[in-house]
Amino acid sequence: MEISWETSVTDSINTIYLLFSAYLVFMMQLGFAMLCAGSVRAKNALNIMLTNVVDAVVGSLSYYLFGFAFAFGDGSGSNPFIGTQYFALKNIPSTSFDYSFFLYQWAFAIAVAGITSGSIAERTQFSAYLVFSFFLTGFVYPVVAHWVWSSSGWLNPGSTNLLFGSGAIDFAGSGVVHLVGGIAGLWGALIEGPRVGRFDAFGKPVQMRGHNATLVVLGTFLLWFGWFGFNPGSFNKILVSYPDSFDQGNWTGVGRTAVTTTLAGSTAGIVTLFGRRLLVGHWDALDVCNGVLGGFVAITSGCSVVEPWAAIVCGFFAACVLIGLNIVALKLHYDDPLEAAQLHGGCGAWGLIFTGLFAKEEFVVQTYNAGNLGVTRPYGLLLGGGWGLIGAQVVEVLVVVGWVSVTMGPLFYLLHWLRILRISSDEEVAGLDISSHGGYAYHAHPEESGQRLYGDYLRLQDQ
Amino acid sequence: MEISWETSVTDSINTIYLLFSAYLVFMMQLGFAMLCAGSVRAKNALNIMLTNVVDAVVGSLSYYLFGFAFAFGDGSGSNPFIGTQYFALKNIPSTSFDYSFFLYQWAFAIAVAGITSGSIAERTQFSAYLVFSFFLTGFVYPVVAHWVWSSSGWLNPGSTNLLFGSGAIDFAGSGVVHLVGGIAGLWGALIEGPRVGRFDAFGKPVQMRGHNATLVVLGTFLLWFGWFGFNPGSFNKILVSYPDSFDQGNWTGVGRTAVTTTLAGSTAGIVTLFGRRLLVGHWDALDVCNGVLGGFVAITSGCSVVEPWAAIVCGFFAACVLIGLNIVALKLHYDDPLEAAQLHGGCGAWGLIFTGLFAKEEFVVQTYNAGNLGVTRPYGLLLGGGWGLIGAQVVEVLVVVGWVSVTMGPLFYLLHWLRILRISSDEEVAGLDISSHGGYAYHAHPEESGQRLYGDYLRLQDQ
Amino acid sequence: MEISWETSVTDSINTIYLLFSAYLVFMMQLGFAMLCAGSVRAKNALNIMLTNVVDAVVGSLSYYLFGFAFAFGDGSGSNPFIGTQYFALKNIPSTSFDYSFFLYQWAFAIAVAGITSGSIAERTQFSAYLVFSFFLTGFVYPVVAHWVWSSSGWLNPGSTNLLFGSGAIDFAGSGVVHLVGGIAGLWGALIEGPRVGRFDAFGKPVQMRGHNATLVVLGTFLLWFGWFGFNPGSFNKILVSYPDSFDQGNWTGVGRTAVTTTLAGSTAGIVTLFGRRLLVGHWDALDVCNGVLGGFVAITSGCSVVEPWAAIVCGFFAACVLIGLNIVALKLHYDDPLEAAQLHGGCGAWGLIFTGLFAKEEFVVQTYNAGNLGVTRPYGLLLGGGWGLIGAQVVEVLVVVGWVSVTMGPLFYLLHWLRILRISSDEEVAGLDISSHGGYAYHAHPEESGQRLYGDYLRLQDQ
Repeated sequence: MEISWETSVTDSINTIYLLFSAYLVFMMQLGFAMLCAGSVRAKNALNIMLTNVVDAVVGSLSYYLFGFAFAFGDGSGSNPFIGTQYFALKNIPSTSFDYSFFLYQWAFAIAVAGITSGSIAERTQFSAYLVFSFFLTGFVYPVVAHWVWSSSGWLNPGSTNLLFGSGAIDFAGSGVVHLVGGIAGLWGALIEGPRVGRFDAFGKPVQMRGHNATLVVLGTFLLWFGWFGFNPGSFNKILVSYPDSFDQGNWTGVGRTAVTTTLAGSTAGIVTLFGRRLLVGHWDALDVCNGVLGGFVAITSGCSVVEPWAAIVCGFFAACVLIGLNIVALKLHYDDPLEAAQLHGGCGAWGLIFTGLFAKEEFVVQTYNAGNLGVTRPYGLLLGGGWGLIGAQVVEVLVVVGWVSVTMGPLFYLLHWLRILRISSDEEVAGLDISSHGGYAYHAHPEESGQRLYGDYLRLQDQ
Repeated sequence: MEISWETSVTDSINTIYLLFSAYLVFMMQLGFAMLCAGSVRAKNALNIMLTNVVDAVVGSLSYYLFGFAFAFGDGSGSNPFIGTQYFALKNIPSTSFDYSFFLYQWAFAIAVAGITSGSIAERTQFSAYLVFSFFLTGFVYPVVAHWVWSSSGWLNPGSTNLLFGSGAIDFAGSGVVHLVGGIAGLWGALIEGPRVGRFDAFGKPVQMRGHNATLVVLGTFLLWFGWFGFNPGSFNKILVSYPDSFDQGNWTGVGRTAVTTTLAGSTAGIVTLFGRRLLVGHWDALDVCNGVLGGFVAITSGCSVVEPWAAIVCGFFAACVLIGLNIVALKLHYDDPLEAAQLHGGCGAWGLIFTGLFAKEEFVVQTYNAGNLGVTRPYGLLLGGGWGLIGAQVVEVLVVVGWVSVTMGPLFYLLHWLRILRISSDEEVAGLDISSHGGYAYHAHPEESGQRLYGDYLRLQDQ
Repeated sequence: MEISWETSVTDSINTIYLLFSAYLVFMMQLGFAMLCAGSVRAKNALNIMLTNVVDAVVGSLSYYLFGFAFAFGDGSGSNPFIGTQYFALKNIPSTSFDYSFFLYQWAFAIAVAGITSGSIAERTQFSAYLVFSFFLTGFVYPVVAHWVWSSSGWLNPGSTNLLFGSGAIDFAGSGVVHLVGGIAGLWGALIEGPRVGRFDAFGKPVQMRGHNATLVVLGTFLLWFGWFGFNPGSFNKILVSYPDSFDQGNWTGVGRTAVTTTLAGSTAGIVTLFGRRLLVGHWDALDVCNGVLGGFVAITSGCSVVEPWAAIVCGFFAACVLIGLNIVALKLHYDDPLEAAQLHGGCGAWGLIFTGLFAKEEFVVQTYNAGNLGVTRPYGLLLGGGWGLIGAQVVEVLVVVGWVSVTMGPLFYLLHWLRILRISSDEEVAGLDISSHGGYAYHAHPEESGQRLYGDYLRLQDQ
């Protein structure tokens, strides 16, 4: 069957858009690896980078074999809880999905375990990591993705039979991705307890700075870069025109989404910069990086359906949430080396609520009804859109927290009970790299007669 | 109103092109951060990376609130000096601009202050940085952008009432971006004076190598990557066909621009490699990196309107300009840790002149008159195009130097007079990171009994 | 002549696709630079990064002047061995090629010498590097590219007069790029011999770990990112529809290629992770990185013509090849700091054979006959496609090994005989950076009174 030129053009344009967005999202895996490496002590850098590589390679196979099927496998017997076809990409390409859609979703899936690995960094056995990463990427996350993003999911905002007539709007996954990863990390970190020496004999926190701030900045910028694929890319198709709207099609929505993302992250960064200046008395570069990321996490839910000015509001409160939760965490002796539960969990939850408050009707209709102005549906509470949307958003927060808690909590506890979750104190003090990975991440080479230690070399020059 | 399928396709293609170009340009911010971090001493690495992050986040808000309006806000009362609408993106999307155009211009705007921060690195108070960065990104730079790039600007080459019948051709901003940033840095560095110890008691320069060459190479390649968005992306639209031309449309011009950019940077890199080999007696990797960047800066003005062979000429002389100005700077005891004034200022000015000499008529008509062969206009002097273009180019050099000098010079002097520009000698010797940012960028962790200093560990192995 | 709107749209879409793919491939140059830098000792980091920068800048000029012409210059007198027109881009754009195609091929060309430089790292004179890099990029590699990828090449699978009725399928260059680079490296490393101290007096290998594992991980992820341009981008055009096929056009093939690439690399990574765990007793992060890259190298030949499940088979055996060849190399006292001959040579050869075994008929017809179902041609032996394809694949392996051996072998031997290939033992022990490049890559700054060595600073805090 000959296909029409119009279809060829449309599919080519949308495939380019989706694939290059997927490539950007994939760079977030590198961003996480660098952010995590820089935020831990040098003796654990190799370990945490290995976990990030393993997320990608193990996630590829588990998501190919069944993760994608659980998330998007709407069959003839469609199911609001879990997908049931497309295992190992059987029947792909279908009329609904091409390979490019799989690749885009794969890049999302491998990000989730990366978030969680931050919370339990510097003290977790590598084999435990393999187990929870496989379970989280292959089952826990895809199920949530199915609820919210699959057309048969019970929380989906785009199909019929919408919850509260609205469904939850979690456009790029403040809840589906970040809250899931953050809550999983919370349980892991709670069950493992703080790192050795994180709180002294009197319960006073002892700062454990990461070993390399350059890597933190590198990771933050790479994550920012990747977020341009994560948020605007979640439209999936750019060539969708709106029949009756001032904005003419998805191409405008895509650009606006990139702008709201940028403004939310930037605002959160500035607020954190000045807020931390007041709190700690110096200009803290690392906290600014986390502030920027907190703003991104928060806007991820509503990025496509809010005005730029609302994104600034979103970022402002995201910074407050992050700063506040970090104070609470310290009080409660909760130790999370990457602040992952606070940042991805806290700001992710705030993002869902924010969308319920500030989503604009016109943009909601554009995003979920292709701009069909005949449709009326709930939108942001503060803009007069009623309780339908905010209600669905609260439901998403609650069910995500609940679902991740009843799946990942017991899993971490089981690993703990089997004594394969946490490494021994001796190993922890020595560092994971030397105890589990055969050597440190960084090497000088004193074994060669002609080369002295770098410090010695410089000292000699002084004489 | 239903929009036509042709419009949908055209807008989708051009939006993809412009947005992904914007993402590449954004990566230059990371490139600058890494280049700067590697080029300063370890004790100031955190400080300079923070300034790069702050450029991005503060620039986002100031450019959103008024920078974009000053640059591109042509209203009904259009104005050759400064724009007057679109504050806080009011009336965007308009018939002229969609969100994607704003995002692309935002990525340019945040680059300017990054250039300047290199010149004044390792000795500037962070609060002074906040002030000049806000003023430069929000006002000084947008005004120049308006002159050259806005259709109502008095130096614009694309509209009617062209200066000298030509207007200045500064396609992607050798002048608008690089010369502006470089001259601002020149004034900052002149007013602050050299770093402590940069010249000894007898006035002899003391080399102050950056702490990490790997970061310099990382930054250089990232900037190269980003320049593929900066230069070819400046066409803004790729789907523009030429009515009467051998080259058929912007898609050919875009490819040629990527090629001229590559050839100019590569040539400048090679010339610097061999030139420095003759001058200093070894193969200098870091100077090659700066050479490559100098070539890029120079070709940025004429990248779309010159032949590939001319780009090689451009790169050759850019390397000469850079090597020469560095010798002059040393003689004059001018201290610029990133060579930003020499590189972005010097090569930027050369790039404007080069375009006036080598711009090809056919390409000028393609770029600025959509290939309409009926148009005749001035082009490169050496190709027989007369004095109109080269005259306008010289005017742009002069007015940019003048405008930046009368705005940024007094500002830096005011900050200096208020004693909030430069840090104290004690702080400078100790390093900005420990005095202003709460700690160094790099941390070993001797506080844990089981872990020795890495050097100690290696020394023990030797015994 | 007015061009049609259909042509404008098609050319715009394909140019966007090819240019952004080229940019991704260019990032592989950064990936190589970081991978190499991290894999060598600190004293040689600057040297190897300089070689990567020089590959890019020298390669730009040599490929512009004659490399592209040798590879793709099919003239009226077309020639199966070497191209004869388009020197210095004369007659470009032509009806066959636009600038974007040159840029894409340029990004490939500069990668080849980077592979080879890994094999001879830490002991090669920089001037020898300049010679072989110029010769390899400008002549040896383009000739092989002409054979396989140019429509007049004698091994080409797309034109008439196909070898064995099939031609060799080397879609993105397991053989043309990786096997060429790897065999060149093999000869270089064999002629130079192992690094000083690599094998002790009793012939026992002494481990020489690279100085920075973070850079290895950074490089690996950047190479992965770039491979999304390398493999799917090799379609060159995305807007090509198939007349009689279930898959509708290149856009589906492009997505499938990204998926096969990901699965092969991931599988090879997992197999290496567990394989090395069994062999060395710990979870080795660096070997996993090499495993991932080995999987990518192997799938590069057949990425567009195999099913996703076959990519998993490809990755599995690629890991076995890599692990096995590394054991052999150690036994034979072959020293290759980056394992480049094993990885790019060994996995590259395996990739060509794999394609001959597993290429699917439908995909071969789609890729090389635009989906014209009337065509029948040989395909994978194990899928019943006969001996034509596997025969041509074996021929490619043999002629690539032979051609590179008879060109690069004598060249390296000549340089060796002229005593300009290897540095002296003294220089090698001291390190290339201090002996040839004027200083180390990393600098602390003890010359300033107020700043102590970082180690001293921390030690003082302990007291």
